[in-house]
Amino acid sequence: MTWLRSTHARKQGLPPGTIVHVGERRVETTAITVIAYGEGGVKESAADTPEACRDLARGNGVTWVNVEGLHDTALIQRFGDVFGIHPLVLEDIANTNQRPKAEDLGEYLFLVFKMLYPHRADGNLVTEQVSLVLFPNMVLTFQEVEGDVFDVIRERIRSGKGRVRKSGADYLAYSLVDAVVDHYFVILDTLGERMEAVQDVVIETPEPDTVSTIHAMRSDLIYLRKTLWPMRELVSAVERSDSPLINRAHRPYWRDVYEHTVQVIDHMESLRDLLSSALDIYMSAVSNRMNDIMRVLTVIATVFIPLTFIAGVYGMNFRHMPELGWRYGYAGIWVVMLAVAAGLVVYFRRQRWF
Amino acid sequence: MTWLRSTHARKQGLPPGTIVHVGERRVETTAITVIAYGEGGVKESAADTPEACRDLARGNGVTWVNVEGLHDTALIQRFGDVFGIHPLVLEDIANTNQRPKAEDLGEYLFLVFKMLYPHRADGNLVTEQVSLVLFPNMVLTFQEVEGDVFDVIRERIRSGKGRVRKSGADYLAYSLVDAVVDHYFVILDTLGERMEAVQDVVIETPEPDTVSTIHAMRSDLIYLRKTLWPMRELVSAVERSDSPLINRAHRPYWRDVYEHTVQVIDHMESLRDLLSSALDIYMSAVSNRMNDIMRVLTVIATVFIPLTFIAGVYGMNFRHMPELGWRYGYAGIWVVMLAVAAGLVVYFRRQRWF
Amino acid sequence: MTWLRSTHARKQGLPPGTIVHVGERRVETTAITVIAYGEGGVKESAADTPEACRDLARGNGVTWVNVEGLHDTALIQRFGDVFGIHPLVLEDIANTNQRPKAEDLGEYLFLVFKMLYPHRADGNLVTEQVSLVLFPNMVLTFQEVEGDVFDVIRERIRSGKGRVRKSGADYLAYSLVDAVVDHYFVILDTLGERMEAVQDVVIETPEPDTVSTIHAMRSDLIYLRKTLWPMRELVSAVERSDSPLINRAHRPYWRDVYEHTVQVIDHMESLRDLLSSALDIYMSAVSNRMNDIMRVLTVIATVFIPLTFIAGVYGMNFRHMPELGWRYGYAGIWVVMLAVAAGLVVYFRRQRWF
Amino acid sequence: MTWLRSTHARKQGLPPGTIVHVGERRVETTAITVIAYGEGGVKESAADTPEACRDLARGNGVTWVNVEGLHDTALIQRFGDVFGIHPLVLEDIANTNQRPKAEDLGEYLFLVFKMLYPHRADGNLVTEQVSLVLFPNMVLTFQEVEGDVFDVIRERIRSGKGRVRKSGADYLAYSLVDAVVDHYFVILDTLGERMEAVQDVVIETPEPDTVSTIHAMRSDLIYLRKTLWPMRELVSAVERSDSPLINRAHRPYWRDVYEHTVQVIDHMESLRDLLSSALDIYMSAVSNRMNDIMRVLTVIATVFIPLTFIAGVYGMNFRHMPELGWRYGYAGIWVVMLAVAAGLVVYFRRQRWF
Amino acid sequence: MTWLRSTHARKQGLPPGTIVHVGERRVETTAITVIAYGEGGVKESAADTPEACRDLARGNGVTWVNVEGLHDTALIQRFGDVFGIHPLVLEDIANTNQRPKAEDLGEYLFLVFKMLYPHRADGNLVTEQVSLVLFPNMVLTFQEVEGDVFDVIRERIRSGKGRVRKSGADYLAYSLVDAVVDHYFVILDTLGERMEAVQDVVIETPEPDTVSTIHAMRSDLIYLRKTLWPMRELVSAVERSDSPLINRAHRPYWRDVYEHTVQVIDHMESLRDLLSSALDIYMSAVSNRMNDIMRVLTVIATVFIPLTFIAGVYGMNFRHMPELGWRYGYAGIWVVMLAVAAGLVVYFRRQRWF
Repeated sequence: MTWLRSTHARKQGLPPGTIVHVGERRVETTAITVIAYGEGGVKESAADTPEACRDLARGNGVTWVNVEGLHDTALIQRFGDVFGIHPLVLEDIANTNQRPKAEDLGEYLFLVFKMLYPHRADGNLVTEQVSLVLFPNMVLTFQEVEGDVFDVIRERIRSGKGRVRKSGADYLAYSLVDAVVDHYFVILDTLGERMEAVQDVVIETPEPDTVSTIHAMRSDLIYLRKTLWPMRELVSAVERSDSPLINRAHRPYWRDVYEHTVQVIDHMESLRDLLSSALDIYMSAVSNRMNDIMRVLTVIATVFIPLTFIAGVYGMNFRHMPELGWRYGYAGIWVVMLAVAAGLVVYFRRQRWF
Repeated sequence: MTWLRSTHARKQGLPPGTIVHVGERRVETTAITVIAYGEGGVKESAADTPEACRDLARGNGVTWVNVEGLHDTALIQRFGDVFGIHPLVLEDIANTNQRPKAEDLGEYLFLVFKMLYPHRADGNLVTEQVSLVLFPNMVLTFQEVEGDVFDVIRERIRSGKGRVRKSGADYLAYSLVDAVVDHYFVILDTLGERMEAVQDVVIETPEPDTVSTIHAMRSDLIYLRKTLWPMRELVSAVERSDSPLINRAHRPYWRDVYEHTVQVIDHMESLRDLLSSALDIYMSAVSNRMNDIMRVLTVIATVFIPLTFIAGVYGMNFRHMPELGWRYGYAGIWVVMLAVAAGLVVYFRRQRWF
Repeated sequence: MTWLRSTHARKQGLPPGTIVHVGERRVETTAITVIAYGEGGVKESAADTPEACRDLARGNGVTWVNVEGLHDTALIQRFGDVFGIHPLVLEDIANTNQRPKAEDLGEYLFLVFKMLYPHRADGNLVTEQVSLVLFPNMVLTFQEVEGDVFDVIRERIRSGKGRVRKSGADYLAYSLVDAVVDHYFVILDTLGERMEAVQDVVIETPEPDTVSTIHAMRSDLIYLRKTLWPMRELVSAVERSDSPLINRAHRPYWRDVYEHTVQVIDHMESLRDLLSSALDIYMSAVSNRMNDIMRVLTVIATVFIPLTFIAGVYGMNFRHMPELGWRYGYAGIWVVMLAVAAGLVVYFRRQRWF
Repeated sequence: MTWLRSTHARKQGLPPGTIVHVGERRVETTAITVIAYGEGGVKESAADTPEACRDLARGNGVTWVNVEGLHDTALIQRFGDVFGIHPLVLEDIANTNQRPKAEDLGEYLFLVFKMLYPHRADGNLVTEQVSLVLFPNMVLTFQEVEGDVFDVIRERIRSGKGRVRKSGADYLAYSLVDAVVDHYFVILDTLGERMEAVQDVVIETPEPDTVSTIHAMRSDLIYLRKTLWPMRELVSAVERSDSPLINRAHRPYWRDVYEHTVQVIDHMESLRDLLSSALDIYMSAVSNRMNDIMRVLTVIATVFIPLTFIAGVYGMNFRHMPELGWRYGYAGIWVVMLAVAAGLVVYFRRQRWF
Repeated sequence: MTWLRSTHARKQGLPPGTIVHVGERRVETTAITVIAYGEGGVKESAADTPEACRDLARGNGVTWVNVEGLHDTALIQRFGDVFGIHPLVLEDIANTNQRPKAEDLGEYLFLVFKMLYPHRADGNLVTEQVSLVLFPNMVLTFQEVEGDVFDVIRERIRSGKGRVRKSGADYLAYSLVDAVVDHYFVILDTLGERMEAVQDVVIETPEPDTVSTIHAMRSDLIYLRKTLWPMRELVSAVERSDSPLINRAHRPYWRDVYEHTVQVIDHMESLRDLLSSALDIYMSAVSNRMNDIMRVLTVIATVFIPLTFIAGVYGMNFRHMPELGWRYGYAGIWVVMLAVAAGLVVYFRRQRWF
């Protein structure tokens, strides 16, 4: 959980609007890809500079510029200069500890949010910040690594499936946000499966490891909560926005993403409740198991203690112990001892102590 | 609890408006039934295609088209084409992981909600999604399986009891929602009975199984919560809606369902509180019982340990142990041991240790 | 706690507006009493039919019709017919599982709420539903049993004390609601006394029974919560209502009841907090007591175990055990054993282990 | 905590506006003091009747009438008659179980709130109800006992320090409320000190008494909560009030009291959080201590049990036990026993069991 | 945690507007520094009196007057007289127990908030109150000690980096608030690191000390909560303020601080959740460890108890005990004892009791 040590602190003391890359450097080189499309066709190209992007964006149709890698702050500054983006927005793009938010800056809309996916190797939660700047005919996105979440949108643009080729830049923005929110369900499904596994284990074979698992899931849910509630505000802000950048006819689509986000949050909160229920069950199961063991062991000890005492009595060396000389003394004492043992066992059984 | 692994994720990557059946396939074939009625009479028929439904719906009166089975996405698409339903709505109809909601789309109202009933065999909570599209003179409903919840409404239409035959399509929609909400009370009564059983058991004979029962009830209540709170929003939205589709004179009826929903939620939240109280009681009862057992066992052991020590002393083989030769040494040691035992028992009793 | 099995479910499937008595039948026969009063005088009479009530209500002054017993649904229907009450209201009157609420139906105001009092025999919480229909010159009340809560109002009308004889029907309604709310304080005082008793017991002599008492009080408080919060909404709705049925000059009185309700709720929530605090204390006191006992017992055992071992050593039958032949071997071993015991006791004392 | 048995119930059944003294009688005789002041000077006098107060209040400047003792309901009634106070307000003045509130009754403002101070003898929380009626040129206050909280205001009026002599009756009302709120800080400081003491004790020397202390503090905080939240509403209502009785120029002063109240509440809520944290720590510390003791004791027992067994073996009386005849049998068995003991001790140490 | 004993109480009884220094005296002498700057240049000087500050502030550009040390109340009074500051504001400046707040007093804006930093020596949380009065061309700040948090702003003014030299006094106020909020991240990072350390320790090597650490972190978070939530209100109030003192063009900057504050709060709340999760884990880990130890020890004891009994039996001195005379009696009894021991060990193993 690297978010515990947010490196936001590194920036402290710098004037506002200073672009500093805050976060891990996750790609070697920054890559810029440009997809220009319209009802007529699609043109994909790579670009080196923001100026090249601007030139490729000229003409009709929609242009999607995607930048992968955020460590090259000079490049981000140049994007700002070329497309007229406010320094505070540039600062937010470079700082990967942003809280998801939507900002209407008049000429463009700025969205920043988190992409979540399970790590390919160990299935742990991986998080990546995506910034999206929506211009009238262009969408500019900044990612930390090359992502596969947006590949489905690229494919849709290429193939012309769905409405994306026929609709404006705001529909592309919607599609990207929708793809990200759809991915949240994958995360929740993963958590749901782990939840089921935990629930099965917790009653039957409670193991100390279960607590670690529960704690890990809880941490994940705490992080999700931190990420998803602002996402809801973000989508809601776009849906209710009266910016001319958002086509009124596309409102139902934004409403749809909004409802998906609410659904994700509902699901997450239910998982939290279930998890805390599971922890209670675990605690109770562990203590039940321990109680059972201790009870049985204590019963065994308690049955033998009086017997050992009786044996001790007839191990005494008094000169005058009449029982010792009796013909059936030894046999008799065995009878007594067995009777005591049987009596105790029956009594404890009746009391349901074992 | 299949909802833990919502299969929403299967859809991920598809363009919005793509109709995919998400959920379990619970019927073999899709069945379409049409009931056309008015003050004059009732006509029930089965239909094969949406077009046939449309033809049956022509004329005065109200038509209720009920579709059972959601796996035939082509059919749902055709319903969309014939009745002019938005692709996103069709997508929601086919996806059984919807959060209950009401949407006003101008020409029609779209409601999606959950029907809950106890399973016939084991009494477990079963959930089914119902989608309802309200047109001026027609109600279109989509169910996952053939349901008996709506049978009472069918019966009421056939017999002409109540106001349903005299009122418009919105009254039919109200009747269907009302029947579903009424059914929630059945679920809560079932839970209430299980609650009473748990409360009786919890103090008198706490068993480890009780925890599983409590956990199962909690999971049910978590699921109910997820389902009922949005239902409240749904009914409230319809009641306050200014859509011309809802007859103003029927507002008191919607108000009535709204209050039933609030009552259900109140009841559910009280059950949650009672359940968490019951868990506390259970924990405390288990620990009391364990304490009682351990205390008694430990008292027994503690009484015998000094006695065994005394016996051990006179089992020693020292040559010069004057007591061993005494005439009443053995009798005397018995007196001492009984005195020690009695003293300890009296002391422990006075301390109320057993 | 009969409310756990609300019998609301029995109604399920019936058309809305069907009058079904839901609840226990608590009187044998329905009784109707009519009190007509004005500044001039009071006339009390019994009536058999709603029509008779209507006739008695003609003339100046205020008429209070009180119906005791709700199982005669035909009678309730006739009241509805005679006084023009909406079927849904009649349904609510007959169903004793209503959530407290106030409804403005234009020509009359409908209030439904819960009367609470301790049971005469065992002091348990008893609940009774009261429905009140306020007409311009008449108040119609429906109770489950003949109640003594309203007797004080009857007495006040008869004696002409207070403002009730000089004021309109809305003042009567206010007086009835006020009498009910005043009774809530009795319940809370009873709970407060039980709370004090629990607090005294909990630290000094924690008994397993205490948990049952706490659980019972908790259940009562959960039920109260369910009842009182909607009551607050009810009174607030009447106070803020702009219905011509409520005399503006009487607003301070409704405000007063509102504040009493809020005070009752505050008190109740404080009791909840105290109760959960008391449970914590109880748990901790029980565990402290158990710890003390176990510690003392274990210390006793631990002191004797080494002594028994020593005795065991000199009980061995080796041929060559020089100590056994010593003159003061036996005396010496007693010294050793007493020294070991004393050493252990002193050590444990110093560690404050007992 | 006398508030658990609020004697509000005693009033039940009386018509609204009946003045009944609810609460403890805390002074023998009722005392009325009148302070009339203006920029010119101050005149203090005692009065016997409300009429006398009214006469003293004639003329310019501000008059403060303070009544100590609430049991003389006839006197309160006379005050009501002389100054035209609504019967419901008089009822509230006499009933010391009021929830703090502010009411604007047009010609006067009615405030009722709680004065809190630590008891002189034992430092326990003492509470007293103060009612304040603000007229254009007069402030009427009712207290349960002669209070020293208001003495500072009296002193300030006498000495002419601060603005009080130069400002109107509303400033006097503000000063009184401010004095009361300032006193809340004293209570919180007392609680804060006890909190610090508890925190120190809780980790190092957890004693069963600590729980009682924590419980007592919790009860105090629950009572404070009940008192302070409505106080906030009260001050906020006065600050935002558009009554002509409140001089606009004095708003910043009311704003200031408001902020103090919020600060008191913040502090109180933090204390609650700290207290519940302290209880967790206490629980954990007690259980750690117990665990340590039990572990050491059990280790001792476990080391001796095998030794006692070995001794028991060579105490057996079999005829053919070759070891018994060995020359170094006895010495050898000591070696074995010491080796076993040492082995166990080393093993337990390595496992860090003691 | 000195805030538990807020010394606010010392002021109690004084008239409002009396300036009393409440808090620790943390510097020896009060220092006043004046920085006057504009696009043209910067002039730094020290001043002795408010009058000198006023004279230095004449002319164009922005003047920042910083006062370090609050114990000289006469000086604060003189600042009030010279710059026309309301007595209640002066009182707030001198009292270091203020709740963060923003007040618009027409001619100036008053902000009071907390600066937080880790102590240089032990890393504990240190808190300092900062008061800021914003005039059209001047910012007046009051600090408790000479602070290094504002040094970065001083440096920026000197060097002319960023926009501060080109913008008005409100931008300076923003920069100061921004520097303070940026510092909150440092605190959270420190807490985050301690959190990570706790999480690592809690499962693997739970130590009693861990509880103290958790309790200390919790106290810090409780204090942070008390400080940060009002800070959010403060920044939000300034951002939404329509005071002419705040340049509209600088709104995005205030919005930016607002979002940082929200982010800090989110992070803090997540830490709270994680901490309470960690405490649960700790509790469970401690109890698991204890259970393991007790189980092993009890198993050892339980295996030996029957063996000791058997040895005791053959230590009895009955004359007629045939086994004692058998040739292989001794060897046989060893076989029996080993068989019993092995049987018990295998049984306990199978039950997974150790």
